[in-house]
Amino acid sequence: MKKFTQRTVPLLLAAGMSLAAATTAWSAESLQDVMKRRSLSQQDLLAAAKTYVPTGKRDEFVAFSSGGQSGQVIVYGIPSMRILKYIGVFTPEPWQGYGFDENSKAVLAQGRIDGKDITWGDTHHPAISETNGEYDGQFLFINDKANPRIAVIDLRDFETKQIVVNPIFKSEHGGAFVTTNTEYIIEAAQYPTPLENKKFYPLEEMNEKYRGGITYWKFDRKEGRIQPKESFSLELPPYWQDLSDAGKGPSEGWSFTNSFCSERYVGGIEKGRPPYEAGCSAKDTDYLHVVNWKKAAELVKQGKTKKINGHDVIMMDTAVKEGILFLIPEPKSPHGVDVTPDGKFIIVSGKLDTHTSVYSFEKIQAAIQASKFESKDPYGIPVIAMKDALHTQVQLGLGPLHTQYDSKSCVAYTSLYVDSQVAKWNYCEGKVLDKISVHYNIGHLMTMEGDSTKPAGRYLVALNKLAIDRFVPVGPLHPQNHQLIDISDDKMQLLYDMPLPLGEPHYVVAIDAKKLKPGVRYKVGTDSRTDKPHPGAVRAGEEVTTRKGNKVEVKGTLIRSHITPETIEAEVGDEITIHLTNLERAQDETHGFTVSTYNVHASAEPGKTVTVKFKADKEGVYPYYCTEFCSALHLEMMGYLLVKPKGWKPTKTGLAKGNYTEADYKATLKKVVDTQAVIDSVVGYITSVNFKDFPDVVAMVEDATDQLGKIPDAKAKHEAAAAKKDWEQANLWAEQIWQYQVKTADLGLRAKTYLEQNGAKKVK
Amino acid sequence: MKKFTQRTVPLLLAAGMSLAAATTAWSAESLQDVMKRRSLSQQDLLAAAKTYVPTGKRDEFVAFSSGGQSGQVIVYGIPSMRILKYIGVFTPEPWQGYGFDENSKAVLAQGRIDGKDITWGDTHHPAISETNGEYDGQFLFINDKANPRIAVIDLRDFETKQIVVNPIFKSEHGGAFVTTNTEYIIEAAQYPTPLENKKFYPLEEMNEKYRGGITYWKFDRKEGRIQPKESFSLELPPYWQDLSDAGKGPSEGWSFTNSFCSERYVGGIEKGRPPYEAGCSAKDTDYLHVVNWKKAAELVKQGKTKKINGHDVIMMDTAVKEGILFLIPEPKSPHGVDVTPDGKFIIVSGKLDTHTSVYSFEKIQAAIQASKFESKDPYGIPVIAMKDALHTQVQLGLGPLHTQYDSKSCVAYTSLYVDSQVAKWNYCEGKVLDKISVHYNIGHLMTMEGDSTKPAGRYLVALNKLAIDRFVPVGPLHPQNHQLIDISDDKMQLLYDMPLPLGEPHYVVAIDAKKLKPGVRYKVGTDSRTDKPHPGAVRAGEEVTTRKGNKVEVKGTLIRSHITPETIEAEVGDEITIHLTNLERAQDETHGFTVSTYNVHASAEPGKTVTVKFKADKEGVYPYYCTEFCSALHLEMMGYLLVKPKGWKPTKTGLAKGNYTEADYKATLKKVVDTQAVIDSVVGYITSVNFKDFPDVVAMVEDATDQLGKIPDAKAKHEAAAAKKDWEQANLWAEQIWQYQVKTADLGLRAKTYLEQNGAKKVK
Repeated sequence: MKKFTQRTVPLLLAAGMSLAAATTAWSAESLQDVMKRRSLSQQDLLAAAKTYVPTGKRDEFVAFSSGGQSGQVIVYGIPSMRILKYIGVFTPEPWQGYGFDENSKAVLAQGRIDGKDITWGDTHHPAISETNGEYDGQFLFINDKANPRIAVIDLRDFETKQIVVNPIFKSEHGGAFVTTNTEYIIEAAQYPTPLENKKFYPLEEMNEKYRGGITYWKFDRKEGRIQPKESFSLELPPYWQDLSDAGKGPSEGWSFTNSFCSERYVGGIEKGRPPYEAGCSAKDTDYLHVVNWKKAAELVKQGKTKKINGHDVIMMDTAVKEGILFLIPEPKSPHGVDVTPDGKFIIVSGKLDTHTSVYSFEKIQAAIQASKFESKDPYGIPVIAMKDALHTQVQLGLGPLHTQYDSKSCVAYTSLYVDSQVAKWNYCEGKVLDKISVHYNIGHLMTMEGDSTKPAGRYLVALNKLAIDRFVPVGPLHPQNHQLIDISDDKMQLLYDMPLPLGEPHYVVAIDAKKLKPGVRYKVGTDSRTDKPHPGAVRAGEEVTTRKGNKVEVKGTLIRSHITPETIEAEVGDEITIHLTNLERAQDETHGFTVSTYNVHASAEPGKTVTVKFKADKEGVYPYYCTEFCSALHLEMMGYLLVKPKGWKPTKTGLAKGNYTEADYKATLKKVVDTQAVIDSVVGYITSVNFKDFPDVVAMVEDATDQLGKIPDAKAKHEAAAAKKDWEQANLWAEQIWQYQVKTADLGLRAKTYLEQNGAKKVK
Repeated sequence: MKKFTQRTVPLLLAAGMSLAAATTAWSAESLQDVMKRRSLSQQDLLAAAKTYVPTGKRDEFVAFSSGGQSGQVIVYGIPSMRILKYIGVFTPEPWQGYGFDENSKAVLAQGRIDGKDITWGDTHHPAISETNGEYDGQFLFINDKANPRIAVIDLRDFETKQIVVNPIFKSEHGGAFVTTNTEYIIEAAQYPTPLENKKFYPLEEMNEKYRGGITYWKFDRKEGRIQPKESFSLELPPYWQDLSDAGKGPSEGWSFTNSFCSERYVGGIEKGRPPYEAGCSAKDTDYLHVVNWKKAAELVKQGKTKKINGHDVIMMDTAVKEGILFLIPEPKSPHGVDVTPDGKFIIVSGKLDTHTSVYSFEKIQAAIQASKFESKDPYGIPVIAMKDALHTQVQLGLGPLHTQYDSKSCVAYTSLYVDSQVAKWNYCEGKVLDKISVHYNIGHLMTMEGDSTKPAGRYLVALNKLAIDRFVPVGPLHPQNHQLIDISDDKMQLLYDMPLPLGEPHYVVAIDAKKLKPGVRYKVGTDSRTDKPHPGAVRAGEEVTTRKGNKVEVKGTLIRSHITPETIEAEVGDEITIHLTNLERAQDETHGFTVSTYNVHASAEPGKTVTVKFKADKEGVYPYYCTEFCSALHLEMMGYLLVKPKGWKPTKTGLAKGNYTEADYKATLKKVVDTQAVIDSVVGYITSVNFKDFPDVVAMVEDATDQLGKIPDAKAKHEAAAAKKDWEQANLWAEQIWQYQVKTADLGLRAKTYLEQNGAKKVK
């Protein structure tokens, strides 16, 4: 191979090249060698076999994890524990163009508070939409504790569509939880504050002027949006409300919200007072709030509300009078409140007690029907005695926190924060079945569809807060550790340690992967954030740049591998709006777009139209380009924004001519003919097998046909130029045909590899 | 368990509880059952065994991946392919407080361009600092193509410390690459533009007024910062410069930068001109730029530069005159230029050619010494004939892109974009050894320490651009697919498909995990972004709030589980500055901090001091809280910012009294005594075994001792209050002791579990 050929061999002629087999033997390690070298036990190998997902195969479940303080949602697969996607929710995320294009900026702008941008969130509890209490895989909801908000994510495209701001809270930890048919999304306050916005009362008036509450957000499934005007809240005492759950089956129409610091303590360690941690945990019990939300919704229709900050609030006195609100003591400082799959029981764990408490909905209703209350709280709310509501209490261990359910009847799993364990137990019979140590300080836990009416069993994920001594160290700020546990047998078995690399996820929900049916492309010209046709969309050949006053508007397109237009001209001070439609139909052919130093970025998936907007406030030459590696000529997919001084007039006309001859043109034409022969041979192979049985290959063939379909136009152009002896234009349009051929060949080779690896069979 | 006890059982009494073994037998699946159920082949099982990292064990290598358009760096472990961390670099990231606290805002502010914030980056090529051409694990550098910048990340704490803006480019793809002792970080331009900032020239003057270039950033290893004033650039023709690599061994002192579109074509598809993709790929060759950077640095010292935008630039005519710049033709549209580990060869792959070209540094030097040039380019730069510089060319396949090296002599791996394959070949003998299909459209590839002077072999990662038909679908925007390949045998073996969930990583570098020695805590009171003592740091007990005019400044502390102070008072319109020092010494005891709806967030790892700052521009009551789940009483770690109307005067004095009696106080004291007995029993176990042999346990014991050390102060307080019959204060300070005990017990139980699981032995 020392010989050097002046002419480089046309790219595609080698496509048929078959590799001479490697001459030396394959000295591979055996399984035993590998286990010995890596010190793997038989148990390790079993865990590896239970979690490894080979190339081309797929995970069984998809988990949606809160991204904690990252403000995002993390999507991962189970059992492989591989992260599949981050979804930008409350925090701008440039890869997705989220907060960098105008369309997604409009979503984030819905989350402004008191007129100001909030550019992050403290996400806690994701919830999947339900139909008849079962996960339906259509929507995901998640809350922001720091800036009380709820976001709606559409699982057809995994994009955030809406953010609503809570009108009366200043913090909320207890969202999002859905009712059995996703009629409402439940969001409870955390730290009590005055409900009137921007209203100051001193801490001395905590008991009188500070309040908690629960908001019930009305969800319109057809629109895929929350309807704030049809939503309402319930005023509650300044107990620090925490998590909620909606009833199901017999308890449908009711919801349950626990609380802590019902002491209504005010700390002040800097003034010598004991801190909140001491004063908020001094009493043995806090209160479980029991709410009849169906009746509450009727009260709202009847106008029995007070408008606070323009929002309908059912005041406590109304709630008491109408009999929709009750309290039950619960062991101190609880976190989870979890309705059993059959809707008959409500399980509460007090973090500073060793028990979980199983409340009976039937007993609660009996007490309410009989008006059997042990007392009223200081706000007049009837209190049901714990003994009148309890089914059983079970001593599980130190720091019980959150409970999830198995597909097996009566079987529950509860996280033990201080013990760093998971307890498996039977809540019907009140007995412990198994325990497993986790690593360390588990917060929430999660079983597959484990808070629905039909838990799927199989796996449990322990959301551990500390990852010390576990992973390769990455500095003072550690990842979290989500541990996958096999729960299909009687004894739990630890399968996998998964580092969570961004944020501190608080809670996760997991759904059967088969229930998710996301799309791979949009109808051409769609604004994905409104799900409507984008007014800036154009079709191929209709690209246009217009100027009105100092406003320049571009309606352009993106396709492998060029941006139309390739030049945008402006005067300094102009407002530039660029709409771009991705004309691709092929799966995963996303194009990105940015303009150098102007701080805009867009991600345009197939069919999507996006808009970026900025003021061309500095003169100069600013390249724009596609930011996704979309094809071999990806780096050439660019153009120039020219920002001219005001009143600038050109002195030089005409671009430098390329130095091309008729011989160059003919050489390019030969390359095109040779390449077509290679394409034909790949096409010959594909059509010789049952490629139509492979939908992914059919899609590649469709894409290849799209590419070849562009050739006649370029052919007409090079022939017209050649007739005028314009050898540059002739040669380059012929070259453009070769570029389409390269893309076609790329697809053809991918299809060929796929067919070979997936056992395609010869057809006649 | 139906019996209900009015008094909840003190938490810790159950610590010794031993679980009755589960009664039913463990009906576990065998390995064969699992393989059958999951359709795993023997080959799959082998791959699982090669990649599975059991709990408590660690990865062999750590990969630092560009985060693409996310603007971040992704850290993952090899062979498990688990993501360990995202590092905020060019894009604000709230979990890390990056861009949300004042200290990190100062880093991002260094990256402002033309006076404006840039809130994202298009990261491409990470580089680890080198000593004698070997990775030393001290620093990581990464570029931003869209807004030409370089960031410096310190691998002692995995934090971004510095961002420098390129003073003369408008885009750059070819950074970051380091010289053999990290004297310089190399950054090459991509799309040509005028070098003078904000200067407009029309595209008609491309050849005369548009330029490319390479910047050599001087790195000060002791300071851990780039020194912009000691850095310089080299003016280059408007060929689109791409990647670079520094020489090593015999070629040390030289650097190599390739290019494409040396046609200097100007597209304009909207005006009927063929697009850039056609015009930029019309010629068979582009130019490899060969630069003597050591001599260039001397020229800068001699003042042989022109100041452009205040920056030293060696102009082309000087470079030619001084003999530091040469060109060599290279096959068209190359991407990677990769110097061999021994520094003797430079391998270039032309994406639109089927060959890789192996250039000999010795031959290049011979040509230069003999002044044997085939021509000069239009800018007067001497061109060495390809045949005079080539060692060999090897036909590898379609779309060769990037080359990395094996620990085995002469063995290289090259990605083939169009073929979707990796080729293993011998560059000394010029022969292909093996090929493996990847999935699909591989860009860069990466072997362990594969661009250093001592590649580590073992594994290769293929950075594939398309993830169609591979993972559970997650909407139109797909993850990337990094495939792990075993290269220890003669034949390559595919081990693992890893979805990359955020951004499109362009390049990755991987280092032996043992070379990384990050810290787990800071010296108390450190500003981690400057590595200097933070002026707002205070020690425990010295917390202070001061007011000067309308400026309120808080110097506070964070420790499990309270923030000092617990109240911050302000008048509307005040400027609030809050400095917080995390007093924890324990690993992973990070606290976060936010103030409701004021859009600030900080992450304070042990020892760190951080500052948040905002204008209290709205009246009301705003909770602040710790955003990291740091202990059982984490939710109680909060306080209130009170923003009062101007001139507000209190009317009510004194907080509501808690309803506590002497009996409550005595009950709490008893709980404390009981709990101490449990702690003593755990301590008894720990000290009965060789716990001192386990550094992680020693650290936990140290932390537990810290917790217990806080008790005497609380004891003095409850006794003093009891003497005054203030039962609320007495009870709550006693309760606070119990909170310290809960934290101690938590640590003790973690230590106990660790010792039991890691085979601790009894000692006398």
